[in-house]
Amino acid sequence: MKTAVDLIEAKKRGETASREELRAFFGGYMEGKVADYQMSAWLMAVCLKGLEPSETLALTECIIESGTSRPKENFGKPVVDKHSTGGVGDKPTIVLLPLLASMGALVPTLAGRGLGHTGGTVDKLEAIPGLRQMFSWEEGQKLLGENGAAFMTQSDEVARLDKRLYALRDVTGTVDSVGLITSSILGKKLSESLDGLVLDVKYGSGAFMRTYEDAEKLALSLFQVATSFGVRTEVILTDMNEPLGEWAGNGVEVMEAVKMLRGEKTEERFYNVTMSLAEAMCRLAFPHDGRDLKAELEHKIKSGEAYERFLKIISAQGASAETVAKLDEILAPAEHRLVLKSGESGYLKEIDTFALGKLLISLGAGRRVLTDPIDHKPGLRFVKRIGERVEKGEPIMEIYSSRPLGAEDVPGIFVLGNDPPDLGEYIRPLKPQAANFKE
Amino acid sequence: MKTAVDLIEAKKRGETASREELRAFFGGYMEGKVADYQMSAWLMAVCLKGLEPSETLALTECIIESGTSRPKENFGKPVVDKHSTGGVGDKPTIVLLPLLASMGALVPTLAGRGLGHTGGTVDKLEAIPGLRQMFSWEEGQKLLGENGAAFMTQSDEVARLDKRLYALRDVTGTVDSVGLITSSILGKKLSESLDGLVLDVKYGSGAFMRTYEDAEKLALSLFQVATSFGVRTEVILTDMNEPLGEWAGNGVEVMEAVKMLRGEKTEERFYNVTMSLAEAMCRLAFPHDGRDLKAELEHKIKSGEAYERFLKIISAQGASAETVAKLDEILAPAEHRLVLKSGESGYLKEIDTFALGKLLISLGAGRRVLTDPIDHKPGLRFVKRIGERVEKGEPIMEIYSSRPLGAEDVPGIFVLGNDPPDLGEYIRPLKPQAANFKE
Repeated sequence: MKTAVDLIEAKKRGETASREELRAFFGGYMEGKVADYQMSAWLMAVCLKGLEPSETLALTECIIESGTSRPKENFGKPVVDKHSTGGVGDKPTIVLLPLLASMGALVPTLAGRGLGHTGGTVDKLEAIPGLRQMFSWEEGQKLLGENGAAFMTQSDEVARLDKRLYALRDVTGTVDSVGLITSSILGKKLSESLDGLVLDVKYGSGAFMRTYEDAEKLALSLFQVATSFGVRTEVILTDMNEPLGEWAGNGVEVMEAVKMLRGEKTEERFYNVTMSLAEAMCRLAFPHDGRDLKAELEHKIKSGEAYERFLKIISAQGASAETVAKLDEILAPAEHRLVLKSGESGYLKEIDTFALGKLLISLGAGRRVLTDPIDHKPGLRFVKRIGERVEKGEPIMEIYSSRPLGAEDVPGIFVLGNDPPDLGEYIRPLKPQAANFKE
Repeated sequence: MKTAVDLIEAKKRGETASREELRAFFGGYMEGKVADYQMSAWLMAVCLKGLEPSETLALTECIIESGTSRPKENFGKPVVDKHSTGGVGDKPTIVLLPLLASMGALVPTLAGRGLGHTGGTVDKLEAIPGLRQMFSWEEGQKLLGENGAAFMTQSDEVARLDKRLYALRDVTGTVDSVGLITSSILGKKLSESLDGLVLDVKYGSGAFMRTYEDAEKLALSLFQVATSFGVRTEVILTDMNEPLGEWAGNGVEVMEAVKMLRGEKTEERFYNVTMSLAEAMCRLAFPHDGRDLKAELEHKIKSGEAYERFLKIISAQGASAETVAKLDEILAPAEHRLVLKSGESGYLKEIDTFALGKLLISLGAGRRVLTDPIDHKPGLRFVKRIGERVEKGEPIMEIYSSRPLGAEDVPGIFVLGNDPPDLGEYIRPLKPQAANFKE
């Protein structure tokens, strides 16, 4: 029987641990027999030596089993979800839950809070007064049975091992490992007892994976492990070199999602990324049944069914009739507006999207430390997008803040060039060959 | 100001920390602001990415300053010590202290306990009843003033940071880093306020560094850091592919050292390694004074001065007149003897010296866990040495145990071959060019 020190030293030498060894190690950790200082040494060895897919699989399994999973009562519906690795302005989840539920799928999403420079669905939805998001599985199942979807977040009962590992990784410089990220994401998602999972892996200046290559590595790892659990999986890589959509913040992002649900015109990339994810979720939920999924999705929006479902969901979770009536007012941006104008002319070439995320935090829309309160009113509105022509003096971005803001608070974020930049695809499915598909 | 996480992540990327950054990090650790789980992540990153000499130097400095150093009252004598990286049967310290003291040097050794498969001077000397070895610097200085040497061990006041780091490394698989080993050894040794230091770096099957190349890397690091502190340093690499001397154990090793001090014939390698170390210590203690140091050392033994000094030292530390009178009896091996005979004929080619160390522990002569009591009577006597001819049925080793022992308890440790093996040098000074000597 290998001790914790044996396992740490084996990983230090780059060796692969067996499923049984990892189960004993993480089991010991949850029982207090393996100490935090031993786990952090192992985590650092993993960051530097990597995890084999078999190890990532075993860790994911340990995370799922450390908590409770959603009971497999599916109300006769296919169960799908999607996960995004996070970015700035990344709000499709708010559209996808009611939209997919209106299509007849069950969407038991456990959403998260903001992390680093990125926003989180739970924080954004807290802009709706009275909305409760944390439920036991029993309560959650009731909501899911009623409306097919619920805006939920992880309770203390789910993926307990991940909660402890995540907190430890955060303070020991051991966040950036493909294997650890994969098991953390899938350990939580697979606790939802899914039939299908769509993964939206972001790359670019506003993503955790700055390069496409790193994002592809993570995408492949997520695909391999999720399919090993027998979950139908699609992975889409999407561009996060600029914010997704016209708005970034909390309330303002919910408003932008509401507009899409109402069938109002929204920014093209946001609309297309959301619809691509919706179609992928539908392909997994309703495979081989010959429906024109895209047309049906569009119809659910145009007919008002999707938005109606959204209102039902938030009402079931505690939003009052008064709140629903005043939603546009509640979700309006903060009162103080600063218009950022261009000092020169040219083509918008690059956006430091990471800095935009940090700017939002400095406006109070995110947390510096875990205990920071969140202001749901501040927001950024993106007037110009990458590739667009900008003339000197034209507005590039609007900043909405709850306190008066001077121009000196805005760092240099936008880079102009003389020529229009080459714009690549901003939605890229994971290449089948990369995922080792057997033809 | 970099946070602990910043420093951990920088080391993960292989970057070099500044002296100020490391001082803040270790200072924070001693104050409880940096947690054990953060330190262990840093230690693992160090094991995999290494420490630059400047970092090892800074860590050594932090270790020294975390405790108290010997007051620089030297009684008009040059202050020298030696350190061995440890092995099986490694007993020169017991000879060197009285021998060098009789030469006029001050030897304020802080010796250690057994570690892993190796024995420790403090454990061995506890075979002498009543011998006290832990003293405050104030008490230690009194003993040093009287006899020029004392058998002392590290009190809680010395190198406090090392004590914490060492305990943490032991349980987190982060022992084997040249930089960490260097700073641990020198942090303790340099707290003795030395003029000169001889380092005996062991290589081979009974050493922590199995290969000569790894031992040379450690030797070079020790040399560079010790000289950076302005301490005159000599490094000698010695062979630990077989035990040093005729005996291994606790009391039996003290007895073997006593025999050498009395001028009785002892095993050749043990004698030569001990005298090489003694000469090196003399070269550092009495540089350029034209004395024939080797002849003087031999005279100190032949004249009985060295042994007389040994008896003075142990008497000053609590050994009674009765103990001194009965020393040979007290240090005799345990009563049950098992003679290990060769099952075949050939030349003794290899010895698994690590396994011999483990065998001693299984006889009770060492610790499995920190709280194990030690039996000072068991011992191994090596009848045959590497390179010697062994006939079938001839004794190879004698095992002395406090409890009856069956032949089934002895693992296969000795490898015979048809031809005499090539025997290289077993004492090798660190090559000056390896140590970047400026000519």
